[in-house]
Amino acid sequence: MSVLRLESFAKGRWIGPTDGVKPLKSAVTGEVVAELGSAALDFAGMADFARSVGGPGLRAMTFHDRAFALKALAQYLNDRREALYELSYETGATKPDSMIDIDGGIGTLFVYSSKARRELPDDQVFVDGALEQLSRGGSFVGQHVATPLRGVAVHINAFNFPVWGMLEKLAPTLIAGVPAIVKPASATAWVAEACFRMIIESGLLPEGAVQFVAGSTGDLLDRLTGQDVVSFTGSASTASMLRANPKIIGNSVRFIAEQDSLNASILGPDAAPGTPEFDAFIKEVHREMTAKAGQKCTAIRRIIVPGESRDAVIEALSARLEKTVIGNPRDEKVRMGALASLAQKADVLEKAAILETEARRVFGDPASFRVEGADAERGAFVPPMLYSCDDPDGAEKLHAVEAFGPVSTVMPYRDLGHALALANRGEGSLVASVFTHDPGVARQAVLEAGAFHGRLYFANRDTGKEATGHGSPLPHMVHGGPGRAGGGEEMGGMRGVMHYMQRTAIQGSPDIIAGITNRYVAGGSTVEKEPHPFRLTFGELTPGRTLWAGPRTVTLEDIEHFAEFTGDTFYAHMDEEAAAANPFFPGRVAHGYLILSFAAGMFVEPAPGPVLANYGLDNLRFMKPVSPGDSLKVRLTVKQKTRRKDEYGEVRWDVGVYNQEGEQVAAYELLTMNAM
Amino acid sequence: MSVLRLESFAKGRWIGPTDGVKPLKSAVTGEVVAELGSAALDFAGMADFARSVGGPGLRAMTFHDRAFALKALAQYLNDRREALYELSYETGATKPDSMIDIDGGIGTLFVYSSKARRELPDDQVFVDGALEQLSRGGSFVGQHVATPLRGVAVHINAFNFPVWGMLEKLAPTLIAGVPAIVKPASATAWVAEACFRMIIESGLLPEGAVQFVAGSTGDLLDRLTGQDVVSFTGSASTASMLRANPKIIGNSVRFIAEQDSLNASILGPDAAPGTPEFDAFIKEVHREMTAKAGQKCTAIRRIIVPGESRDAVIEALSARLEKTVIGNPRDEKVRMGALASLAQKADVLEKAAILETEARRVFGDPASFRVEGADAERGAFVPPMLYSCDDPDGAEKLHAVEAFGPVSTVMPYRDLGHALALANRGEGSLVASVFTHDPGVARQAVLEAGAFHGRLYFANRDTGKEATGHGSPLPHMVHGGPGRAGGGEEMGGMRGVMHYMQRTAIQGSPDIIAGITNRYVAGGSTVEKEPHPFRLTFGELTPGRTLWAGPRTVTLEDIEHFAEFTGDTFYAHMDEEAAAANPFFPGRVAHGYLILSFAAGMFVEPAPGPVLANYGLDNLRFMKPVSPGDSLKVRLTVKQKTRRKDEYGEVRWDVGVYNQEGEQVAAYELLTMNAM
Repeated sequence: MSVLRLESFAKGRWIGPTDGVKPLKSAVTGEVVAELGSAALDFAGMADFARSVGGPGLRAMTFHDRAFALKALAQYLNDRREALYELSYETGATKPDSMIDIDGGIGTLFVYSSKARRELPDDQVFVDGALEQLSRGGSFVGQHVATPLRGVAVHINAFNFPVWGMLEKLAPTLIAGVPAIVKPASATAWVAEACFRMIIESGLLPEGAVQFVAGSTGDLLDRLTGQDVVSFTGSASTASMLRANPKIIGNSVRFIAEQDSLNASILGPDAAPGTPEFDAFIKEVHREMTAKAGQKCTAIRRIIVPGESRDAVIEALSARLEKTVIGNPRDEKVRMGALASLAQKADVLEKAAILETEARRVFGDPASFRVEGADAERGAFVPPMLYSCDDPDGAEKLHAVEAFGPVSTVMPYRDLGHALALANRGEGSLVASVFTHDPGVARQAVLEAGAFHGRLYFANRDTGKEATGHGSPLPHMVHGGPGRAGGGEEMGGMRGVMHYMQRTAIQGSPDIIAGITNRYVAGGSTVEKEPHPFRLTFGELTPGRTLWAGPRTVTLEDIEHFAEFTGDTFYAHMDEEAAAANPFFPGRVAHGYLILSFAAGMFVEPAPGPVLANYGLDNLRFMKPVSPGDSLKVRLTVKQKTRRKDEYGEVRWDVGVYNQEGEQVAAYELLTMNAM
Repeated sequence: MSVLRLESFAKGRWIGPTDGVKPLKSAVTGEVVAELGSAALDFAGMADFARSVGGPGLRAMTFHDRAFALKALAQYLNDRREALYELSYETGATKPDSMIDIDGGIGTLFVYSSKARRELPDDQVFVDGALEQLSRGGSFVGQHVATPLRGVAVHINAFNFPVWGMLEKLAPTLIAGVPAIVKPASATAWVAEACFRMIIESGLLPEGAVQFVAGSTGDLLDRLTGQDVVSFTGSASTASMLRANPKIIGNSVRFIAEQDSLNASILGPDAAPGTPEFDAFIKEVHREMTAKAGQKCTAIRRIIVPGESRDAVIEALSARLEKTVIGNPRDEKVRMGALASLAQKADVLEKAAILETEARRVFGDPASFRVEGADAERGAFVPPMLYSCDDPDGAEKLHAVEAFGPVSTVMPYRDLGHALALANRGEGSLVASVFTHDPGVARQAVLEAGAFHGRLYFANRDTGKEATGHGSPLPHMVHGGPGRAGGGEEMGGMRGVMHYMQRTAIQGSPDIIAGITNRYVAGGSTVEKEPHPFRLTFGELTPGRTLWAGPRTVTLEDIEHFAEFTGDTFYAHMDEEAAAANPFFPGRVAHGYLILSFAAGMFVEPAPGPVLANYGLDNLRFMKPVSPGDSLKVRLTVKQKTRRKDEYGEVRWDVGVYNQEGEQVAAYELLTMNAM
């Protein structure tokens, strides 16, 4: 493999290093893989380019446009995975490790694309939560919305997942409509640069949407304003230094950090040896210790087990660790590759020595272990190391020092409260897992430990085959944790998108809110005219378009007939005396479904036309009883439109049913699919 | 009035100052009103007391329990308002000013109480968002929840609203279940202390839920951990100093800041003199300049108007300002009282002098103005001062320096884009308002300026009487803004509660999620047994309790009969050929409402019993067409229970309708009211 000379991508051009480059070495062979050096980058200019070119380009797109671009990008990268695997081996990663990174990153793009199209409007304004009634008469209402920040997102990534780490930050940022400047970690920068190069070559993102810094970020952080965001993954000490930057403090720059974490896994009090939970626990702890050679922010560092099961746990784990083949990740027999660099190896051994002051090593000897297919001295290899601690209450370092490798410590507990207290001693973590089949144990874990952990993972016999693993952040779920873990949140579906948007409270008249959000707001202006709205295509319908239909009188015969026909002979419809005794009814009343059915009978236009199907209904509330003799009218108003396919889209109708006094008796939202 | 000696409330006891006290003077007369000094407080002990006594007490309550406590507290304070008005006059506030503070604060408690009961479960775990499907088979699912942080909230309040400022922070904190230590601003601390004393005397909050620091916070901030929160209102410079605290940085302590803000009000391009919007604008700007003598974080500092209307605006505003009576706030003629202190007066005049380097004063002379019923020298009086700036693009200070008093500057704009760009020059504000009757103007304002403002307020002829005002933060809407405004958010309904809770991503089997959230989760275990669930009271029903009913075959005659009876003769039900041509249907299909009605007919138990009413339905989706001859069964499962009154509560049922192949054809949630 020839030596790669890594470049930055700034203001639309690739720029090579200008000052002295430093060699980046293979974690496996120690040979030079790439050269990295800072370019003479104009960081202020890069930030301005993002803000003035990238931002406008992204903001011109709707959420759905951006989601389709992400999907195309995911497909583009997916077709080029092999090249990335090749580069990834040199970071010490096995093929399964690389799949976590590369396939995991691409999968995150796919999930974001599909969730964004399902959960966000095909528009530029995100509507956050329900309309707020701020006045009695309804002429003044409130609505929260979110719009993209008008700055730049600075992504500072960690070395362990050069592809996933980049894509899991880019996906929500780009969906939000915010341009990014990506700074990869040096140790594995050649993989990140190769993937980034594919992104640029794809031509799928607007100009200025993404830039890339190989080498130092220079004075970039000193250029940030209150419209910018820093999203950082790395050590707590680096995070603290960056957070203290006067511009970041003075301009209230958002700072999302994912830093250290002493993640715990708890073997539940019900999960004795012999239970499926015990077996699953051993398998999972082993996997978390050895996958990516333990270089995962989410790896299990503390193994918290019932005191009486400690020996069984150590024995079962040791037996599995014994069989773990360490060596050249290109070798298919090998289950655990190398750490990312010799510097990482030195760091892990140094931290392990600290742990050894509070625990004894019960498995693994860094001075003596077998390495397959590679030179143990030139590569950054370490064996899995398991520790056991007798007094986890007295321990300090075990709850505070993270050896970022295949290193973990078994700690005994007395009862569940003790186990959770030990887990919380980490002072904030990304994830804790509990292996239990008892929902009561799970509830207690959430109540007593939820506040300390960004994610709680429960595994048992029921989740067995489908469980995604303690250590796997998923795009659907938040990734991050309080305190030591940095206090940040990433992903979590659309929650992660909101970190790059500004929430704004909007107050005004219904028509003003309608104009802002492109949806009809109750009390706002409507348009009634021919033809019947069911005769209009998706494109022809506009929010506010309204049909009034009826009246129709509901007779006692209708109610009795409906009861007999459907079988719903609930006493409130059939028995005057019993109905009148009910706190909600004046006497016999019409069935709710009779009201819905008659409403449809009034507004439906029967002939074939653009309305293809009624496929659902939301937020139905019966507001007043309908008595025999009441005369009903119905109002059908286009509330909101969302394209779904090339051929059709979803129309959400605001429906009101009113009695002869003009009082609303039912409110709901009807969903139809309408041809384009 | 005797001189009040203010005390702290720490670890359940009132403690007077021990070191030298300083006098707090009436803003109106200059006489000493109160004495304030730091007590020898054990801040580490206070924080521990909050965490070990206050937190557990609050966490033992459900959200509804806490909401009821807030309601009782609001009523208790409401009965004692008069005493607070009396104390408030000495801060320079008129009665209407005091009502913003005192009634506004109490109203915030009421709103939080009622919103919490409506929007949060009667439980300790908040369920955040929808269930996430993480596996194909459904045995492994995700759910975000939130639980109270296990630390203490430190509230650092501003001088301008001693009651509202305290209560608007306490309401979401206490609903969240987190204890607070309140630190009022010195200048008006006697009002805050009096209100806090009422809170303690009420006995309505659990022990340790609230503590109070009169005087300095000592080393309190150095005691904070990742489970604590600081919520700060005050100057940007103080905020920057506090944010840089090593413990706050190192422990990722949440820091919610509401600091400086150069709020703008824009007269829309459509709002020429003579329009209702022009008149409303003049009235509102005048009100915002003079209410609370301009000492509102949300007051209008920049008046952005079409160039051609500038003279008309200055003329109309000046005419109103001319009529504004300044003086002793106890005098009913007086419309504007004093600033809170002579120090504030000096500060306002100093800042006004800075503004005067970029704008000329067109109204008000601090050297010469009339003061009614008070000594102009001894009280902290200033007149309203209106400035006009010819070159707002060239100005710097006007967009950056906040004179925290009745001071504002008129700036001309060329077009809407220019007006919005000027508003954004504040680099982040709490609120901007736009007076316009054009929804297109509103949409452009949101797209171009939303990211810079925490709130956008639109007023026009439609909102006239009901509009709550540019300067009024409401408990329903977020209060805070990006950048210069501090980047924080307060209130916003339940959004503000979440700042005191930790969101945790939960993963596990449906039964585990059900156990944690006290609600049935699709795919989880169910219990089927006698009697029919409609025969069980609210208290007797438990999530998972299930009834299967049916089958019932849907015949072509049923469909035709239903069409004829209801009038819904949509072709998909009536015309085989046309229906088959529709992309969603195999041929003629049953009406959705027929399916719902038959389902009810199958599961309803007709005789009087605990089920009082079907009052609504949510999330109905028709998943597969039902053809003539299909045989339907229905499953009714208790999903979730919420008590609503002493006599009854809401039961949410998960309903599934299935065909003879076991395929689900419809899914929905049914809402009933059930007797206790």
